[in-house]
Amino acid sequence: MPSKQTMDATNDPLAASRRRFLREGSILVGGALASGLAASEASADAGTNAGNLPPNVPEWMKAPGDPVGSQLYGTPSSFEKGVVRNVPKNAAQYISASSRSPLQDLDGIITPNGLFYERHHGGIPAIDPAQHRLMVHGLVEKPLIFTMEDIRRFPSQSHIYFLECSGNPTYKKPYGKTASDLVGLVSCAEWTGVSLKLVLQEAGLQPNAKWVVAEGADAAAMTRSIPIEKCLDDAMLVYSQNGERLRPQQGYPLRLLLPGFEGNMSVKWLRRLHVAAEPAYTREETSKYTDLMPDGSAREFTFYMEAKSIITRPSGGQRLGGPGFHEITGIAWSGHGKIRRVDVSVDNGKNWQEAQLQEPVLTRALTRFRLPWQWDGKPVVIQSRATDETGYVQPTLAELLAVRGDNHFYHNNAIWPWRIDGNGEVTNANA
Amino acid sequence: MPSKQTMDATNDPLAASRRRFLREGSILVGGALASGLAASEASADAGTNAGNLPPNVPEWMKAPGDPVGSQLYGTPSSFEKGVVRNVPKNAAQYISASSRSPLQDLDGIITPNGLFYERHHGGIPAIDPAQHRLMVHGLVEKPLIFTMEDIRRFPSQSHIYFLECSGNPTYKKPYGKTASDLVGLVSCAEWTGVSLKLVLQEAGLQPNAKWVVAEGADAAAMTRSIPIEKCLDDAMLVYSQNGERLRPQQGYPLRLLLPGFEGNMSVKWLRRLHVAAEPAYTREETSKYTDLMPDGSAREFTFYMEAKSIITRPSGGQRLGGPGFHEITGIAWSGHGKIRRVDVSVDNGKNWQEAQLQEPVLTRALTRFRLPWQWDGKPVVIQSRATDETGYVQPTLAELLAVRGDNHFYHNNAIWPWRIDGNGEVTNANA
Repeated sequence: MPSKQTMDATNDPLAASRRRFLREGSILVGGALASGLAASEASADAGTNAGNLPPNVPEWMKAPGDPVGSQLYGTPSSFEKGVVRNVPKNAAQYISASSRSPLQDLDGIITPNGLFYERHHGGIPAIDPAQHRLMVHGLVEKPLIFTMEDIRRFPSQSHIYFLECSGNPTYKKPYGKTASDLVGLVSCAEWTGVSLKLVLQEAGLQPNAKWVVAEGADAAAMTRSIPIEKCLDDAMLVYSQNGERLRPQQGYPLRLLLPGFEGNMSVKWLRRLHVAAEPAYTREETSKYTDLMPDGSAREFTFYMEAKSIITRPSGGQRLGGPGFHEITGIAWSGHGKIRRVDVSVDNGKNWQEAQLQEPVLTRALTRFRLPWQWDGKPVVIQSRATDETGYVQPTLAELLAVRGDNHFYHNNAIWPWRIDGNGEVTNANA
Repeated sequence: MPSKQTMDATNDPLAASRRRFLREGSILVGGALASGLAASEASADAGTNAGNLPPNVPEWMKAPGDPVGSQLYGTPSSFEKGVVRNVPKNAAQYISASSRSPLQDLDGIITPNGLFYERHHGGIPAIDPAQHRLMVHGLVEKPLIFTMEDIRRFPSQSHIYFLECSGNPTYKKPYGKTASDLVGLVSCAEWTGVSLKLVLQEAGLQPNAKWVVAEGADAAAMTRSIPIEKCLDDAMLVYSQNGERLRPQQGYPLRLLLPGFEGNMSVKWLRRLHVAAEPAYTREETSKYTDLMPDGSAREFTFYMEAKSIITRPSGGQRLGGPGFHEITGIAWSGHGKIRRVDVSVDNGKNWQEAQLQEPVLTRALTRFRLPWQWDGKPVVIQSRATDETGYVQPTLAELLAVRGDNHFYHNNAIWPWRIDGNGEVTNANA
């Protein structure tokens, strides 16, 4: 972190740099930055140059580095060893548990496979792909059994889609401190596999085929019921993620992928598709993944992940080095399709500005948003609000709670505010 | 691999599956598959079911799997341990060397960071990001020195771009046996960083600023000269790749990225940008990365990677299980922008069919193409030909050699054919 020394800004190339940037920034984003210009010139921006030295020849230029074959499968720099999946402490048991993506440390929309969030109900099985089979049976003309090689022979397709656990985050305190603690059960990757529609057409659907019950080959035999409409739409059987084969944590060698639906319906280690007239009402869609409404009714089969967004920088646990220019950036997504816009408030929700969306905006994928921002050094609450292509607007937590009551656990897609103190420290404003 | 047993197709659900698929396939792709239908029903497609058994409860469902925290940074399945970067044997020395992406094992367009190709001229330095500096000097109004934290404070952007070494592949035999051996010095990722234009505007360009000389902080002090037009267009300073920080092999903590230009101009471990009126004529742009033409002149500053494509499946080293339906798939790319179309020939170049391009087609990114194909089991030569949005068409090797002569080393973007023998074995047709 830069020291907070006050320097002579006129002799300081970086302070000059900051002024120039701010001028450019003003042109780029209109008048939004102009008001912060004086503050930034006078104080903290100049401080970011403290400790800078000309780039003399560093040690690592004086001798050859590691050879090219030193990592046939590469790993991150040792300086990034803190950027790992986040396993909640005090988890009740180890086999039905989750780990979260370190969202606050990630850029762009692709989550690298090593940091993709995990949610397992019976641990991670080690499956030999040569022994794995997928059975398609029930209300079909011909039951079928596929090897992985059979699956690979179908025509393939690739799409970038997000996946999110529907318990991301909880409605009740304690709320997570960081973006990862709070909503780290979401990630995004390029998936390759086969259209589920094509595989079902192979088997031939009987007229009363209305649901497909998918079963995983883990110790929990994770089982979920999926409406036939989704199965004949954009559902996939995927074997690759970000170019390479699925990781064991993501269902190796084969998983179902239901774009935009709650994560655990995208059944991992997929071994069986039972075509049926009714849903199976399994444990994981009745005891779990169903919510109790205030009137005592059960809100079940809540498939879609509604529009949502979170600011990942600045976010909880981070600290702004000082007043002046800061980019606000984060991710937005919707199970219903594309993100249409994201608005950001830097005054505790009173006013909202439209953020820039990184192109291309893809359906049911994370969308990166960014807003240039001039911080005046005063305490402030920042937050983002997503709108998707259906016109649906991300609600506040109060709005959600008013409808859903005290016993709701899943599908909390509330706007989430971060508080920035005068010293630059960022904390969860709802905590 | 499936055995080649002949089975009773009428009692074989998978053979039924194949027939049905072919019917669907015929609808999807017109008459292209119809002629192969009889052959597939009679023989090898039925054979793919040999050894199939109903999915009884496998061992990995009978006990809990690995716990969720077993890999805080994940790695691939042990069953995929053969999918690694490919280091050419008998490389002259270990510090100036390369490793190749295993293209024949990859799907989609994203290359996972662990398998991204490498090319180093002085080994891989282990750089402490807190000590790293970027200096911008020369024909600027104010020379500037940036810490990594300074760089991170600029407005960011993310783009999916390919990178390719300009020596991919050589013009002379021996040619690589696999797609990776042949053209594995290309990969694609989502990059996040800062517009180089913005950083140069911070420093302020003097009127005679026409080139920027970029220097890396490796033991080779890799140095290349870049025309100012590219620096003010889409050039970036990148710090993240596929969401996470750059790997050491890719320039951690900071690299230049010049979309569409030959890979080694995207200087890794970037420490210095010297703004100049002329190029520096460094070793790596005169002794290397320049070509001798038949008339004795030097073809230098050959920045753009021209349009190119390669079929990755089926490709050299693979083996088709038998006649019948096979998808032909591969990757195409152009340094000049988007791929407009890819054509595939399955008759040694006599006739060509337009392949399907996976959307979204992005500028200067890999583009995945696919063609459904019915193999009749006879020997055949297959190949792909890319056309980019400028109308440029990928040439044959003979066309390239006719113009470039015997002393060219770089920028071989020739069409590359694979031969499939009657037994399904795939080999390099030019070898």
